[in-house]
Amino acid sequence: MTTDPHPWALGLDTLHAQVWTLLARGVADRHAAARHPTLATSSLTGWPEARTVVLRAADAGAATLDIHTDITSAKVAEVRQDPRTTLHIWDPAAHLQIRIKATVTLLSGEDVADIWTRVPDPARQSYGTLPSPGQPIAAALAYEKAPDLSTFAVLRCSVQVLDILHLGPQHRRARFDRADGWVGQWLAP
Amino acid sequence: MTTDPHPWALGLDTLHAQVWTLLARGVADRHAAARHPTLATSSLTGWPEARTVVLRAADAGAATLDIHTDITSAKVAEVRQDPRTTLHIWDPAAHLQIRIKATVTLLSGEDVADIWTRVPDPARQSYGTLPSPGQPIAAALAYEKAPDLSTFAVLRCSVQVLDILHLGPQHRRARFDRADGWVGQWLAP
Repeated sequence: MTTDPHPWALGLDTLHAQVWTLLARGVADRHAAARHPTLATSSLTGWPEARTVVLRAADAGAATLDIHTDITSAKVAEVRQDPRTTLHIWDPAAHLQIRIKATVTLLSGEDVADIWTRVPDPARQSYGTLPSPGQPIAAALAYEKAPDLSTFAVLRCSVQVLDILHLGPQHRRARFDRADGWVGQWLAP
Repeated sequence: MTTDPHPWALGLDTLHAQVWTLLARGVADRHAAARHPTLATSSLTGWPEARTVVLRAADAGAATLDIHTDITSAKVAEVRQDPRTTLHIWDPAAHLQIRIKATVTLLSGEDVADIWTRVPDPARQSYGTLPSPGQPIAAALAYEKAPDLSTFAVLRCSVQVLDILHLGPQHRRARFDRADGWVGQWLAP
């Protein structure tokens, strides 16, 4: 049998720990795969939506992840209507697909003033788009940026389920639930 | 002003054509970004789901995309209940996010017998998992593969909307709709 280059994939505990290691790396390293999850939400008409986001914080103890966004973006309206989301990451070096079911709490205004003071100026240019993101405009560059605290929101994602697929010499898939203390269960891949 | 390294991003027609060029490349080249879209669906309880899939065909004229899957997978049950999906691709070389709203027609049995004969044996090992994908198993490797035509399905995705974001020296975003003949509309990014 071929030796698996990822021994952490062989046990439920080590697999779970590795997922949080990779999430923390995504926050710290802008070249890490987990830096840019795909966030899936339900649109206001119930159509599944997906877009790249930037992972800004990962708290393994609380099992929460933070994403920053323009408060006028469609995804803010969507999570206000339905806070159920999935974050998806494919890490090619780890041969690992991470699927994260999370419920979102929307934070804004004074609740995120401390976070806003730590957002560097280049990143601030992602917020405060006028007209709002997704609105039709007459020409490609007919928009402005006016970032300030009032345009900024944090999606605090409370992880409920991790569905993890490792593509090794033999594939392994496991599910970890907040509801049962993250004990883990192997699944058919 | 900085010169944009991607002149195709400057016009609606050239941007639209480039998207289909990249999709065709995803079918032909397993190292291309568009080879592995993230497919978002609604679960049977309405929770947004997302997973990596493999792009197997792209027909620019009909504006359809094909994905192959195990017929017992959750995504098959999901698109049977709600055929609305989004495919998401981030192409780092092109600095391009491609978001594709598509409705799925599920093909199986004799309708896909010709496609099945052309699926190479290693790829066939992705179908016919027992127990079905996502079912709990007692140990990590307590599953088998029994691929045959009866375990195989094709998701034929009829593209309805393309929402394209180019991250250049200045960001550009455009939307193309089947309903208006793909003429294109710039959006605030």
